[in-house]
Amino acid sequence: MSLSADQIIHKKRDGQELNKEEIDFLINGYVAGKIPDYQMAAWAMAVFFRGLSSDETAYLTMSMANSGDLLDLSKLGYILDKHSTGGVGDTTTLVVLPIVAACGGKIAKLSGRGLGHTGGTIDKLESIPGFNTELSEAQLLNQVEQIGLALAGQTQNLVPADKLLYALRDVTATVDSLPLIAASIMSKKIAGGASGIVLDVKVGRGAFMKDLAAARELALQMVNLGKYVNRKVTAVISDMDVPLGLAQGNALEVQEAISVLNGQGGRRLRELSLVLAEEMLALAQIPSSAKEALESGEAFNMFKKLVAFQGGDLTKFKVNAPYVKEVIAEDSGYLYDADALLIGELVRDLGAGRRVKGETIDSDVGVVFHYDLGDSVLKGKAIASVYARDRESLKMAIPRLARAIKISSTPYNKSVVLEIIRSGELN
Amino acid sequence: MSLSADQIIHKKRDGQELNKEEIDFLINGYVAGKIPDYQMAAWAMAVFFRGLSSDETAYLTMSMANSGDLLDLSKLGYILDKHSTGGVGDTTTLVVLPIVAACGGKIAKLSGRGLGHTGGTIDKLESIPGFNTELSEAQLLNQVEQIGLALAGQTQNLVPADKLLYALRDVTATVDSLPLIAASIMSKKIAGGASGIVLDVKVGRGAFMKDLAAARELALQMVNLGKYVNRKVTAVISDMDVPLGLAQGNALEVQEAISVLNGQGGRRLRELSLVLAEEMLALAQIPSSAKEALESGEAFNMFKKLVAFQGGDLTKFKVNAPYVKEVIAEDSGYLYDADALLIGELVRDLGAGRRVKGETIDSDVGVVFHYDLGDSVLKGKAIASVYARDRESLKMAIPRLARAIKISSTPYNKSVVLEIIRSGELN
Repeated sequence: MSLSADQIIHKKRDGQELNKEEIDFLINGYVAGKIPDYQMAAWAMAVFFRGLSSDETAYLTMSMANSGDLLDLSKLGYILDKHSTGGVGDTTTLVVLPIVAACGGKIAKLSGRGLGHTGGTIDKLESIPGFNTELSEAQLLNQVEQIGLALAGQTQNLVPADKLLYALRDVTATVDSLPLIAASIMSKKIAGGASGIVLDVKVGRGAFMKDLAAARELALQMVNLGKYVNRKVTAVISDMDVPLGLAQGNALEVQEAISVLNGQGGRRLRELSLVLAEEMLALAQIPSSAKEALESGEAFNMFKKLVAFQGGDLTKFKVNAPYVKEVIAEDSGYLYDADALLIGELVRDLGAGRRVKGETIDSDVGVVFHYDLGDSVLKGKAIASVYARDRESLKMAIPRLARAIKISSTPYNKSVVLEIIRSGELN
Repeated sequence: MSLSADQIIHKKRDGQELNKEEIDFLINGYVAGKIPDYQMAAWAMAVFFRGLSSDETAYLTMSMANSGDLLDLSKLGYILDKHSTGGVGDTTTLVVLPIVAACGGKIAKLSGRGLGHTGGTIDKLESIPGFNTELSEAQLLNQVEQIGLALAGQTQNLVPADKLLYALRDVTATVDSLPLIAASIMSKKIAGGASGIVLDVKVGRGAFMKDLAAARELALQMVNLGKYVNRKVTAVISDMDVPLGLAQGNALEVQEAISVLNGQGGRRLRELSLVLAEEMLALAQIPSSAKEALESGEAFNMFKKLVAFQGGDLTKFKVNAPYVKEVIAEDSGYLYDADALLIGELVRDLGAGRRVKGETIDSDVGVVFHYDLGDSVLKGKAIASVYARDRESLKMAIPRLARAIKISSTPYNKSVVLEIIRSGELN
């Protein structure tokens, strides 16, 4: 029997399970331009309402992964990757990867520029003068072989099915479907050649997932999906009610990553980075200690090696915001709250993020907290600083930042790591 | 706040009610080409799952009706219309309209060619040599003024929103949504200028609606919708498990309509036609008797007047199928069953219907039963005849028709009229 998109949509609409041939037919047809946007949109909406089974999600993930180039890293050994669902002040990649590579883990990470309150990892790294994120496949492989770590922008032909489908979902109210999110994330990790993947699933005001139940469901689906597609996956669910690091911006976050790699920086960023690194090492069955690699300076050495290999010059790196102003504590007490959503929007409005694809971002602007969440602060002291491009932005930002911060007699006490879901622990 | 299609889809997806401005924005934007097919497809699928409230259905209906030309028949008085959801051997229009017009009812009916087992009313009428279905608005109005009845093809610009949306629904598995069906039907009736509308909602194997509960729900929605858009609507739910008339085909159905208008033809077709005519007369508050108009020959006179006014020549009308063969009863007993779906498909395969838009149809082919459902038949006697264009078709058709017919010791006993839902009887 010949397949038709119409019948496949109908089947999904009526709650029936699609088989591999049907999902391949949809994805291949869509990428080839034979199945039009309107049929994929109707299908995506049917998936929103009906969900996808574990089998269907696995078929979709592999079909999408296979829609473009597949990075073959098998000759390099066991390749690790990490992915964050996105948050505010989330610089973990720049801390975790050097730690893992310093311990002997192998990482070839492809990152997107993406949309968000700040730029993606690629945007952040480009605030280091000379840093080149456009590596050929040969360069990428060579670098991983030599130092165990490379970080590059995604090639145009990596998972074209995801590019098309995501753009369509974005304008048809079908973004928030857990199986479609899981397939989107995992297809890119699989096409990127990873065997072991640690996912940082953010939950809270500053994250896409607003409540723990939904975040847990997404995490479970992705860890489960790993079993179906023969990849080891661990999901760490972490708090995004408040910004993760002290810094929010592009160069400011690179600066903080360097601080953490030197034993300073935000406690929450350090803690989550160590957990993510340990989980990655566990997937690769590397017995080394992430904490030791961090504290010994090995991780920072690896970071410097990474920057040097990709042409960056750390001696020329600095944050060049012409206008900097502090927000002053109006009370004494504990730093009780910092609303990640308000701060994320503020940082984006300062110019650190993109509203639409292709927009340029400002590397130098952002916000830096002088205290960790939960620290005690004194009335009249500076709590945080705004880094702005011009006087108007600064004027806009100071009262908004002040409103996002709360000082109280009790400290903020939510753990940064909320749950860890490992493949072996699933039923 | 400015509207966006994305937000409107989102709202519907989440089960919220859309207001008039939002629905107008969607429909107007879609017809203007500003809202793409993929957003309408996602919206239609969200409507499939979430439904539409009475208010939303009314907004949609009026927005669609207003998307193109509106026939203004107000100066002609109270205009009646009828619509059938489509069945096999359904020639009621050609019987009902002359009856109602003979009683003084005024009807300006616009019909489509449509898809189906046989052609639409327009296709059937075109089997009468010379019959012209392409009337200008002025011709239509003039004819209704003179004889009370005109029957024409829909103009290109009648409810363009429905043309676009129906074509989209057809390929995105969003046809079977009751509020979308209701809005599609009613928008065309409203744009066609009717004040009183009788709907023949078919239910059974040969109909779009397969069970009574769904047919009743559609009927209720349309009668209810009439209240919201200020039109009087009555819905007659009728049996479509078996073909309505004795004849199934185009010219063959015209021939049977003429028989019924002359006191012969199928009992079920005659019965339903009288009920539909009476309901139309009731809406227009015309006290005349449909049965009297039929039995006195007034209705047939009106039919002849209609044909003459539109250029047709009944003296030249005949069925020209070159191959005719009978199906013989293999048992004696009652005509217990004739599967409307099997017979509809058979008639379409003989060439009487269209599979895709624009296909030409064969006026002369089809099936004619020699008995009504429920009649007693004798072994060895001819039960029905097949009219075919060629020998191969005839050969294909005879065993298929024989399989669709059952003779039993009990007669078929389902009433043709199952329920009548009138506006005044709704809560």
